[in-house]
Amino acid sequence: MDNRAHRYCVIMCGGIGSRFWPYSRAKLPKQFIDFLGTGRTLLQMSYDRICNLIPAENILIITNDRYADLVREQLPGVSEHNILLEPARRNTAPCIAWAAWHIAARDPEASMIVTPADHVITREAEFERSILEGFDFIESNDALLTLGITPVSPETGYGYIQIGEHTVGNISKVKTFTEKPDIELAKVFIATGEFFWNSGIFLWKASVIQDALRRHASDIAMVFDSAPDGTYTDEEAERGFIAEAFPGCLSISIDYSVMERAGNVYVETVTFGWNDLGTWSALYDLSPKNLDRNVTQNCNVLSYNCSGTIFAIRGEKLVVVDGLEDYIVSDADGVLLICPKAREQKIKQMVTDAKLKFGDKYE
Amino acid sequence: MDNRAHRYCVIMCGGIGSRFWPYSRAKLPKQFIDFLGTGRTLLQMSYDRICNLIPAENILIITNDRYADLVREQLPGVSEHNILLEPARRNTAPCIAWAAWHIAARDPEASMIVTPADHVITREAEFERSILEGFDFIESNDALLTLGITPVSPETGYGYIQIGEHTVGNISKVKTFTEKPDIELAKVFIATGEFFWNSGIFLWKASVIQDALRRHASDIAMVFDSAPDGTYTDEEAERGFIAEAFPGCLSISIDYSVMERAGNVYVETVTFGWNDLGTWSALYDLSPKNLDRNVTQNCNVLSYNCSGTIFAIRGEKLVVVDGLEDYIVSDADGVLLICPKAREQKIKQMVTDAKLKFGDKYE
Repeated sequence: MDNRAHRYCVIMCGGIGSRFWPYSRAKLPKQFIDFLGTGRTLLQMSYDRICNLIPAENILIITNDRYADLVREQLPGVSEHNILLEPARRNTAPCIAWAAWHIAARDPEASMIVTPADHVITREAEFERSILEGFDFIESNDALLTLGITPVSPETGYGYIQIGEHTVGNISKVKTFTEKPDIELAKVFIATGEFFWNSGIFLWKASVIQDALRRHASDIAMVFDSAPDGTYTDEEAERGFIAEAFPGCLSISIDYSVMERAGNVYVETVTFGWNDLGTWSALYDLSPKNLDRNVTQNCNVLSYNCSGTIFAIRGEKLVVVDGLEDYIVSDADGVLLICPKAREQKIKQMVTDAKLKFGDKYE
Repeated sequence: MDNRAHRYCVIMCGGIGSRFWPYSRAKLPKQFIDFLGTGRTLLQMSYDRICNLIPAENILIITNDRYADLVREQLPGVSEHNILLEPARRNTAPCIAWAAWHIAARDPEASMIVTPADHVITREAEFERSILEGFDFIESNDALLTLGITPVSPETGYGYIQIGEHTVGNISKVKTFTEKPDIELAKVFIATGEFFWNSGIFLWKASVIQDALRRHASDIAMVFDSAPDGTYTDEEAERGFIAEAFPGCLSISIDYSVMERAGNVYVETVTFGWNDLGTWSALYDLSPKNLDRNVTQNCNVLSYNCSGTIFAIRGEKLVVVDGLEDYIVSDADGVLLICPKAREQKIKQMVTDAKLKFGDKYE
């Protein structure tokens, strides 16, 4: 059976990437940046990757309405009706719910993959193989499938999925979800071989995630079930229902509202060179280094007594630096950040401080 | 006798201030910057200071011709004929010689003060008193007078003048000139009470420095003595002699070519709150500090675990910084410098490296 015509993709790209502030900003977030210097932004790379698997007319982009023009500019091949514009930020559950109702209205037999726009995947052929295995599974089972990345180190910044009973191929039942563990626990997780990183990439039939939302997140499901005729059509924007109803949804993640509560949750363990680019240190680790172990993004650097440092600059600039070890130096759009990599978890607080003291334009 | 009408001032402002790179640049050097945040540039402050002592029509500005527009803009009250534009950089001896010949042609009885444009003087009334004492002395003596600053610490970055036989008031014969001593020697200098910092501010009659140049720097004097009629007049620029002859002068300082060789050299010891702003550390020391002992020039700074650091930014920018102790952070015109204050003597080399590697626009 060829299910290809019923397969859909939803690329979520509404985040603001504040952990890469000031290089990633509310007005130009991470997913819209050519972070790896390849000539394609993270969103464009996510789109290119999925194009081999899903018919172009079945690829939907869901984002905050302030990024509409960025999406149109970066993905000119995506039709206007495949761009869903959220009128408010409400985390992943309302976002995925809207997409599922929208797709189910187009095609009651639809299966779908939901993926963030801002991850890096280096082994594309393996990615394709994994996604096809996932589709095959959810098309023959009423399952909620999440992709679990085979861990390569005891990271404390990720959620972990513990696998239970083996089902088929690379797919198992999920036993537990665990949010960011401390380093000791993370080491134990790795040693057992039972724990995988939660990628935030999901596959399911549209009807199955609708049912799961009705059961486990009924307040959200009720919003989308109550939509008047014509909502999930090409006239959706003109009808105005989403603009009115979406902001009323609870802001909650799909993991917390559905995946951690439902019974039919499965994990496919994968090894396709995944990195969520969640931290400056991750970007540093992933990027090619010069002889001094420095990484440069978009700038010329003249460095003395300086190593382990990442420079990310927007606009033409020469950086001359002496004496920085393991720092982040980022200059973009009126903000210069100089911060040790070891303290990058403080950057979110710095952004808050900057907004409080100097105004929202620094978000 | 009122000599005021015969008194002239020459403000030298042709330097490029490379020790403050990138904040001070070849295209906008230190003397043209409002370095103290007072609303007046160093050149303007030098001009304001001398205006109380010298008739405005007797104040000359000598600078490199590339800075002509900056001078006109910053000192709109100075007439075009009082701006001498050097066609090449040739250190202070040719610069002062030209000014002396020019002034002597206007007024054979002229006395003159020569001063750099980029120093800071905080005690203006004391400055005026000192300059008047100096003029009185050189008008009644055929003397070359230099101002010696009473030292407040054993600086190794300055030249020192040792005083000899006391002459009158605050004026003594000069015994020796010593270039930058090491720290041990500087401490000995201070302890003796005989050594003063060489300020680079001179007073003499135009005819007396002409004679001294003829005797001790005859190759330079010959150039200016050989000028055709009309050279040292309002038609000087049109006549073209300076444009042709000046670049042929030896590049040498007035200290080395004349002051260290002549017999009639005197020093007036002064205490008018002088600082040559020769280093970032000097600027740091002179500037008001915030609670973390940081200094900001022209920017908002949000700092964490950061002290003893100076931030000098051109253009609107928010700087967010964590973990810098005793650094210089300067961003201007396409260059960002991050350098420990303790290594600022390396900045000249960095500029050279930057030009070699990335082009002259970074000078």
